[in-house]
Amino acid sequence: MSLEKFSKETTLEMRKKLIGHSCRLFFSEHPMKIVRAKGQYLYDEQGQRYLDCISNVQHVGHCHPAITRAAAAQMDLLNTNTRFLHDHIVHYATRLAETLPDKLRVFYFVNSGSEANDLALRLARQYTQHNDVIVLDHAYHGHLTSLIDISPYKFRKLGAQKEWVHVAPLPDTYRGKYRKGHPDPGQAYADTVKDLIEDVHKKGHKIAAFFVESLPSVGGQIILPEGYCRKVADYVHEAGGVVVADEVQVGFGRVGSCFWGFQLQGEDFCPDIMTMGKPMGNGHPLACVVTTQEIADTFTGNGVEYFNTFGGNPVSCAIGLAVLDVIEEEALRRNASLVGGHLKELLLHLQRKHTIIGDVRGAGLFVGLELVKDQAQLTPATEEAAKLVRRLKEEELILVSTDGPWENVIKFKPPMCFSIEDAELVAEKIDVILLDIGTTSQSKMKET
Amino acid sequence: MSLEKFSKETTLEMRKKLIGHSCRLFFSEHPMKIVRAKGQYLYDEQGQRYLDCISNVQHVGHCHPAITRAAAAQMDLLNTNTRFLHDHIVHYATRLAETLPDKLRVFYFVNSGSEANDLALRLARQYTQHNDVIVLDHAYHGHLTSLIDISPYKFRKLGAQKEWVHVAPLPDTYRGKYRKGHPDPGQAYADTVKDLIEDVHKKGHKIAAFFVESLPSVGGQIILPEGYCRKVADYVHEAGGVVVADEVQVGFGRVGSCFWGFQLQGEDFCPDIMTMGKPMGNGHPLACVVTTQEIADTFTGNGVEYFNTFGGNPVSCAIGLAVLDVIEEEALRRNASLVGGHLKELLLHLQRKHTIIGDVRGAGLFVGLELVKDQAQLTPATEEAAKLVRRLKEEELILVSTDGPWENVIKFKPPMCFSIEDAELVAEKIDVILLDIGTTSQSKMKET
Repeated sequence: MSLEKFSKETTLEMRKKLIGHSCRLFFSEHPMKIVRAKGQYLYDEQGQRYLDCISNVQHVGHCHPAITRAAAAQMDLLNTNTRFLHDHIVHYATRLAETLPDKLRVFYFVNSGSEANDLALRLARQYTQHNDVIVLDHAYHGHLTSLIDISPYKFRKLGAQKEWVHVAPLPDTYRGKYRKGHPDPGQAYADTVKDLIEDVHKKGHKIAAFFVESLPSVGGQIILPEGYCRKVADYVHEAGGVVVADEVQVGFGRVGSCFWGFQLQGEDFCPDIMTMGKPMGNGHPLACVVTTQEIADTFTGNGVEYFNTFGGNPVSCAIGLAVLDVIEEEALRRNASLVGGHLKELLLHLQRKHTIIGDVRGAGLFVGLELVKDQAQLTPATEEAAKLVRRLKEEELILVSTDGPWENVIKFKPPMCFSIEDAELVAEKIDVILLDIGTTSQSKMKET
Repeated sequence: MSLEKFSKETTLEMRKKLIGHSCRLFFSEHPMKIVRAKGQYLYDEQGQRYLDCISNVQHVGHCHPAITRAAAAQMDLLNTNTRFLHDHIVHYATRLAETLPDKLRVFYFVNSGSEANDLALRLARQYTQHNDVIVLDHAYHGHLTSLIDISPYKFRKLGAQKEWVHVAPLPDTYRGKYRKGHPDPGQAYADTVKDLIEDVHKKGHKIAAFFVESLPSVGGQIILPEGYCRKVADYVHEAGGVVVADEVQVGFGRVGSCFWGFQLQGEDFCPDIMTMGKPMGNGHPLACVVTTQEIADTFTGNGVEYFNTFGGNPVSCAIGLAVLDVIEEEALRRNASLVGGHLKELLLHLQRKHTIIGDVRGAGLFVGLELVKDQAQLTPATEEAAKLVRRLKEEELILVSTDGPWENVIKFKPPMCFSIEDAELVAEKIDVILLDIGTTSQSKMKET
């Protein structure tokens, strides 16, 4: 049976007419029509199989049968809302609580990372009775009005920064102000936030929240330096604000060694509010905010109901529970550590061979490969990165994409069932293409 | 097999600990634990069956097998995102377009009515380059920061009206400024918006949008007077603004005679932007914004991508298509007209008998029954309404709820498979309880 209703040309034609053009396609000049998927593979309308290195949403693998089974069984039984008591939501909250520090205990279920971050902002403002927000440069926290305001990645393009939003430098130890050679980049970058808070206070404003992606993703697959978050948290708390960790991109064991990205910062750091999203439902619209009893109580204290029509409904929670089960049963965190670690090793090996590779960084299956034109100025190799992405897709049927302010960071955040063989294939093909790009662009090769 | 994992007491205990108390329960003193549902029936943990008169989200009936089938089949096949071409999204947009005036042609798929209304606000502001919004009194457009700002139902409780938000009177012809006896309440209420626009202009502000629920729901199940929307649209357009029709509560054939609530206003009215949500996915998080080519083009013109992680994914669209199929195959619009019409007749008959019934209004399966202490002052019979709701639940296993600024309007918005027998049962039981309430509260009865 054909999996197409329309030819690819017709689909594209209809899409141009019917769907807002702000909704962009990957590889817009040669968009892909994908008709089925399984595990870490996507299949186009001609049956071509692509290795998927970018779908962090389909966390336990595309079309995992256990997720479909859980969804269908619950859809057959009941799908109401949180105004009725139901076991799934409390069971699911219990399971999530087991992965978190004791301090984070009160849950609000919503439908998307954007809804979660918007609610986090409301919680922070209600609790602190302050209004202003500090965010990291290049951050992206969602597509809603309130979140574009706190996402430099978006508001810089729209040319409008709100007076209540303050941008701290991205703690990028590869190309930022304080680099790997610095004795304590965590402290140095934290102090930039301290300085910013002082500036804000001088203007007579007050900080409600510091929003931070636990591993800045759109910013270029950044690993925050040691000690950064705890020190920032001290400064933010002193100013009467709270820390919101945005785990929408990186939670649920992607980093391997921990269940949540913020835990890479050590046991002496815990955010006051944490948001989760994308991987939570393996593609089902499911997201969540968790916070402290104190912050939740203050929110309740405003006397206004929070009702989210679909958030936390029995089907969403059944799916969320099934995702947690699969992560455990298939030991996907261990897989993320092993495979992600191996991928990083292979890429570090390539770095010794290709001067265009400026940096290799990552944790588990969250890996970035930063391409530069030269190792001294770190001039972003934006065109080369685009070329690499395009050739991997067209010649090798491997899907990766770019991130970072200059789109020169190749990002890997594949489904968590990504294998050692997949990692080796990707590294091998990158090697081949970079050799070719290197030759054609006349760049020098180091002695290997 | 038991459908419970925990006892009801345990569930409640866990919920109190784990879920934010701002998320409220129906009948908070005696909350209901619902474990399964089918069609228009909900079943609690003891197997008690309740007739559901309020779940407009489970539009084609709870746990409809065709919806589960469509969801499971697509979950097994593919669930990516809109950055890849896929047939379902364009097929679904085509099917939706067939229900709409030609002018509304460009679709954006999202996960909730709140996300839809937030995007509508962004579209309106981008297109008009104005900032201010006019809303109806008591309106509710969603739980996000931007939407609480334009929802008097919420922001009045929080005590903060933004300077860019302007509240027009609710065109309630039962208890508003202009009532049923008025020669042209549509024109009279439209003129209140005209006056408001003049005030806004005097302040040097400019109108981006007029937001209106096609049938104000939280406001008390209001039917807008004839000609109102077209006349308001003229004034709003003249001021350089656009009209946003919020169909989140009432779309998809609920009103019976039309597919969309705004179409009750006649063929000479079409909004510039329309949002849809709750019933769209029968409980699956699915919502949408549709607008004109011109507005969409301006939004594209800002040069910034709009990416919604889950919005319009293949599973959501498969579910949306299945809902449209069931509406057609089971002739649910016709059912809404017939059953809703019959329910209204029965309630009008009760009105002749019970002086506590001040008004009966509705369209299709969107019906309101307004209770008043007296027919002259129209003093809201809030306690009596609460008593009626509680007794219907406890004695008759019928679930209704209240709406309106004084919570004295009994609202009906059941799944669309609600039957003539259900309507008769509800009317009969309301009669019995009102007779009893009437007797105990010593209210007079008219001659019947």
